[in-house]
Amino acid sequence: MELKGSSNLSKLATSDDHGENSLYFEGWKAYDNDPFHPTRNRKGVIQMGLSENQLSLELIEDWIKKNPQASICTPEGVHAFKDIANFQDYHGLPRFRNAVAKLMGKVRGGRASFDPERIVMAGGATGASELLMFCLADRGDGFLVPSPCYPAFDRDLRWRTGVQLVHVECKSSNNFQLTKQSLENAYENARKANINVKGLIIANPSNPLGTTMDKATFKMLVNFINDKKIHLVCDEIYSATVFRGPKLVSVSEIIEEMDRCDRDLIHIVYSLSKDMGLPGFRVGIVYSYNDKVVSCARKMSSFGLISSQTQHFLACMLSDEEFVEEYLTESAVKLANQHDLFTRGLEEVGIKCLESNAGLYVWMDLRPLLKEATFEGEMDLWRVIISDVKLNVSPGSSFHCHEPGWFRVCFANMDIKTMRIALARIRKFVVRENDQVQQVKKQKKTSNLGHLTLSFSSQMYDETWVVSSPRMLSPQSPLLRAKT
Amino acid sequence: MELKGSSNLSKLATSDDHGENSLYFEGWKAYDNDPFHPTRNRKGVIQMGLSENQLSLELIEDWIKKNPQASICTPEGVHAFKDIANFQDYHGLPRFRNAVAKLMGKVRGGRASFDPERIVMAGGATGASELLMFCLADRGDGFLVPSPCYPAFDRDLRWRTGVQLVHVECKSSNNFQLTKQSLENAYENARKANINVKGLIIANPSNPLGTTMDKATFKMLVNFINDKKIHLVCDEIYSATVFRGPKLVSVSEIIEEMDRCDRDLIHIVYSLSKDMGLPGFRVGIVYSYNDKVVSCARKMSSFGLISSQTQHFLACMLSDEEFVEEYLTESAVKLANQHDLFTRGLEEVGIKCLESNAGLYVWMDLRPLLKEATFEGEMDLWRVIISDVKLNVSPGSSFHCHEPGWFRVCFANMDIKTMRIALARIRKFVVRENDQVQQVKKQKKTSNLGHLTLSFSSQMYDETWVVSSPRMLSPQSPLLRAKT
Repeated sequence: MELKGSSNLSKLATSDDHGENSLYFEGWKAYDNDPFHPTRNRKGVIQMGLSENQLSLELIEDWIKKNPQASICTPEGVHAFKDIANFQDYHGLPRFRNAVAKLMGKVRGGRASFDPERIVMAGGATGASELLMFCLADRGDGFLVPSPCYPAFDRDLRWRTGVQLVHVECKSSNNFQLTKQSLENAYENARKANINVKGLIIANPSNPLGTTMDKATFKMLVNFINDKKIHLVCDEIYSATVFRGPKLVSVSEIIEEMDRCDRDLIHIVYSLSKDMGLPGFRVGIVYSYNDKVVSCARKMSSFGLISSQTQHFLACMLSDEEFVEEYLTESAVKLANQHDLFTRGLEEVGIKCLESNAGLYVWMDLRPLLKEATFEGEMDLWRVIISDVKLNVSPGSSFHCHEPGWFRVCFANMDIKTMRIALARIRKFVVRENDQVQQVKKQKKTSNLGHLTLSFSSQMYDETWVVSSPRMLSPQSPLLRAKT
Repeated sequence: MELKGSSNLSKLATSDDHGENSLYFEGWKAYDNDPFHPTRNRKGVIQMGLSENQLSLELIEDWIKKNPQASICTPEGVHAFKDIANFQDYHGLPRFRNAVAKLMGKVRGGRASFDPERIVMAGGATGASELLMFCLADRGDGFLVPSPCYPAFDRDLRWRTGVQLVHVECKSSNNFQLTKQSLENAYENARKANINVKGLIIANPSNPLGTTMDKATFKMLVNFINDKKIHLVCDEIYSATVFRGPKLVSVSEIIEEMDRCDRDLIHIVYSLSKDMGLPGFRVGIVYSYNDKVVSCARKMSSFGLISSQTQHFLACMLSDEEFVEEYLTESAVKLANQHDLFTRGLEEVGIKCLESNAGLYVWMDLRPLLKEATFEGEMDLWRVIISDVKLNVSPGSSFHCHEPGWFRVCFANMDIKTMRIALARIRKFVVRENDQVQQVKKQKKTSNLGHLTLSFSSQMYDETWVVSSPRMLSPQSPLLRAKT
């Protein structure tokens, strides 16, 4: 629909280049129109497209009850109101910067330390990512992005900066790991297309894969960017979501270990949205080893400073080292439990996920359920999942995945009961879908379409019953057994 | 000083185009290096370059003490923590948008109403202004800006957007009012220079003038932008600082009254930094009458959303209509008192200011004290004021004023005691400076350099004494009397 008032606006406002027409956002709308509620709307869409960490917020709530002085909007803390409400220095509250630097070190197991003077504020990771692009690249320049990658990179990195994203293809055959060859290929192709490549951005832990980068791969790519003299931006916003080994290797550790690395090329994006489950607080951080970037980024941070009310509260909370320790430990345990519950439930119906050790989501392999192994097939399947199964999951194509059939499914934004309902719906769906795929196979008399076959009873599962019978989802369930 | 790591960065990062080398910011640094403190550093620089409204924050503090449930970080309010901390919808909390829309109406005396659906969040007025430029103009396009104007427009409107600012010259001869002729001249000159003019931005109340726009002038300029089919952005962030008549006329009222106005061309920037004295909270608002702009701006607001903690608190506070009413009334009274105290103190030493009815500052006329009527002369005078008088005031040149000798001086960021010290310093300075100007005049045997002559005793004033003797600054003071 054409909106009124399009005349004489900017190209940004009159084009559809904002990246929000991605299926990733489409799914959110489906959820918004019919949101699941455990009592009021049990048939509604369950939101599994939102990468939120809601599992450990009770810990923060408990801390708040014990520490009313941490807020400037309590009788106990209001004495600081005037100073804090007026604080608009773009360097940020010194206590806040110190606390964030300390947190970043702690999350990385103390294997790297961070200088508070290099902490620059931005409006969430969204603002931080765009800000770095403005510092590192000019309109038309290119940035390498291994894919599958975060869908909103199209908005964050590209929309207003005019930077071109050059995707580096990662493949399921090696579990989507980045290779030197794929980097070189993407770089050379960009050069041939006359794109001036200014850098490479990686997410570690990866979104949507939920994997962390191993040291050898990491060193390879640090060498790569040094050889090419291009920048490396490491999006480490999921660093504290690593719930089991291998441990996160941050770029901050890698460059300590390497003899030959131009630190002026190294930059980190951080945030508290995922690690602390506080996306509403809009805490984005740029950490750069390049003095000039720190200086320029600080000036740009004026466009998206963090509310001083929020800085003050977080400075208090994150300075409580005992609390932070407890939060990080408990959060990892809860993520591991929730992840395992979900992936085991999927396994029971024969659905595999990429093996992962981090993130608030899994990278689910539904290739066996595709009616055809194309992105049209993926979209057909996705529409059924949204409208019939009533789960908002995100199709791989929205992550610029090069192979159809993968879906990102978030598991940390819901309680166990809701997850069990989601699993029951998936179970029911797989039963039905597998039936159809088998029929199609029979009709086509081909046998190489998928590697998943299931044995199941034709019983249809009542969600209510499933919820009250968690036994249903135990690994021992006799009803469904994947043969693969 | 060249910073390390300049190679291979963007043009933004490697040029000095960020607007922060303005004298406006220079003065801040002087203050930062030697800040005045009433007991610890009585000889330090007094900050009169910072347009902050600190006079009525006690009212907010009192409200907080009575309303601990308004914060999600109190035992009384923590039940909402989880929902609010996770809230990242770029539409904003409905309660927050409603409350802001209501406040905007109330501040404008109920003479206009605002639709919450058109309220878009941004990172302060800084973020809101840039965001509108991204929506309205492309790189290289022009925007008309009456000057003197806010110094940081160079950063906010121009730096990352690439929009060119075309200054419209306003003159002291008609109290810096905007005229049709000056608008037409600027527009035509821009066209001749092949600049595609996309709009006009005005600040009403004006920063740095402290004046509000009268209805006739306003209608003239709304006709102008309609004729040219260009946008009008009204920066109304000082709307609640109007402390005496004439009342503020907002563009929202003007367009109600006019038969012929394309509303798609009308946009407002709002903020709570000045009106409520909360710059640290980073509340920037874009209000557009253009559907397409609202839609695009909302997508862009992802780069600078307001912390949900802050949205929630403000939604509660601004929904308390009785409190808002009281705050607005008391704040205006306090501003009037502080303004009058300061301007009367200046008058006593023969210094005039542009007559004003709004703002947190006055536009001070020091033309009589210039050794030469040039911008070099202005800068010489400014350096003396900063380094000898130890007041950080802002020179007119940093506001792109076309006539040397004007300075913006802020009065609402300090208590009365500090203001009296500032006035005493000015008094002492004027005595000395006037002496010198008289000598220069004698030497040059000219008599047309300035129109200010003072009679004074040679007594040097001890600041401590002045502080304890407010009588010193009464209008009846016999010591200094301007002859003009």
